[in-house]
Amino acid sequence: MDNIKIIVASDSIGETAELVARAGVSQFNPKQCKHEFLRYPYIESFENVDEVIQVAKDTNAIIVYTLIKPEIKKYMISKVNEHALKSVDIMGPLMELLSNSIEETPYYEPGMVHRLDDAYFKKIDAIEFAVKYDDGKDPKGLPKADIVLLGISRTSKTPLSQYLAHKSYKVMNIPIVPEVTPPDGLFNVDPSKCIALKISEEKLNRIRKERLKQLGLGDKARYATEARIQEELDYFEKLVDKIGCPVIDVSDKAIEETANDIIHFIEQNKSK
Amino acid sequence: MDNIKIIVASDSIGETAELVARAGVSQFNPKQCKHEFLRYPYIESFENVDEVIQVAKDTNAIIVYTLIKPEIKKYMISKVNEHALKSVDIMGPLMELLSNSIEETPYYEPGMVHRLDDAYFKKIDAIEFAVKYDDGKDPKGLPKADIVLLGISRTSKTPLSQYLAHKSYKVMNIPIVPEVTPPDGLFNVDPSKCIALKISEEKLNRIRKERLKQLGLGDKARYATEARIQEELDYFEKLVDKIGCPVIDVSDKAIEETANDIIHFIEQNKSK
Repeated sequence: MDNIKIIVASDSIGETAELVARAGVSQFNPKQCKHEFLRYPYIESFENVDEVIQVAKDTNAIIVYTLIKPEIKKYMISKVNEHALKSVDIMGPLMELLSNSIEETPYYEPGMVHRLDDAYFKKIDAIEFAVKYDDGKDPKGLPKADIVLLGISRTSKTPLSQYLAHKSYKVMNIPIVPEVTPPDGLFNVDPSKCIALKISEEKLNRIRKERLKQLGLGDKARYATEARIQEELDYFEKLVDKIGCPVIDVSDKAIEETANDIIHFIEQNKSK
Repeated sequence: MDNIKIIVASDSIGETAELVARAGVSQFNPKQCKHEFLRYPYIESFENVDEVIQVAKDTNAIIVYTLIKPEIKKYMISKVNEHALKSVDIMGPLMELLSNSIEETPYYEPGMVHRLDDAYFKKIDAIEFAVKYDDGKDPKGLPKADIVLLGISRTSKTPLSQYLAHKSYKVMNIPIVPEVTPPDGLFNVDPSKCIALKISEEKLNRIRKERLKQLGLGDKARYATEARIQEELDYFEKLVDKIGCPVIDVSDKAIEETANDIIHFIEQNKSK
């Protein structure tokens, strides 16, 4: 059994370095290789670097870093070389390319990607919007939304809305259930901003049975019956037909992947 | 005025590469240097690579890529060299280090970081939890939450809860306003999972005045008066004293930075 320690060091909060590190270890079987992340945010002084170096030496860790300030970065590189440590500079190669392509000098200021600019406040607004208009709660969101997600149960409407909000899209989601009348105005919404989410009958059946088992109820309860599921899917299809929007099957897809498909549809429609 | 085009190419959705690219361009003054991202997700064939290469040649773009499949990556490198294009391999250096440190062969399977494992479902649960228990709506969330955020208005409680949810923490947030009695049970919650959020008097005053202006109301409306703000802050401080939890000042901080501080407090308390 291998055991990998990764130090994520950054002069900001280390989000970028951590994402790269996670993507890296995800390529190895977690049963064969345990991994551990040690986060060192706000590396601002030579002493902070020394601490990271000491820990890396003591624990044989790989240092994955994003350092923007030239003097801190230079010091890290010299120390890593001095002690023959394993390290990866995540931002360095791109920063070098950009510096050579752009006449202006960079800010060399850590955390610029988190600055409180218009894009930041747009993202915050989008996150609050998605919470406020979750689950079709308030139809007043419809005309204001950039994206309207329609879906039967268990299609990850809420997390999808949040993921898209982090990309600054204002998203409203609406559950499609035979018993609940869709909000007034849904049929007047521009269909090019609507996306319908479905899930396979088999998958929905499996999820529902699982849930009933957890609740201590039998497989046969109405919620799980195939007839009921068919009814829901039929209702969904009729409604989506009427609206005339694309349908995405989310079965076995991660929200990141579905979100990517949604953005693709929405941007394509915009450029038409 | 410089004009930078960056192609984000990936055999998965390209989230990691895009984050690195955004962090890179954030170091340059957007007024001096316009930038544009072109996303090429799901690069799965030599033809897909050829398309990226063609666009990079035509538009003089920098290619920032994350390619996991060895044959696709090798092809990209050979084409980039052949045409002397500017490119950055985001995952390559770390993958090489990991492969040398770990005995197991990597999966070499794109998108593994998005696999639907326990960690994924834990994150999804956390996102749904934060939406469900936003704004103190339902006190039943209190015992189930990993983190309880208490805050006066305009302290970014909702986006903070969502950001922490993406890190798999179940977060409930509760608005602290003199007129609203805090939920039963708040004083029985383990204070080591509570964090109070405040904002400076001056900043709160500015935000409120701005909002009133947008609403077409005068500066003098009760909502904005300094006496009212003082009343809210006094009430907040008394309540936080009673609970005995740490206070974080969020004025002029991005949610990513505040979230980092919160995680620091919570993890420190856990390890006690």
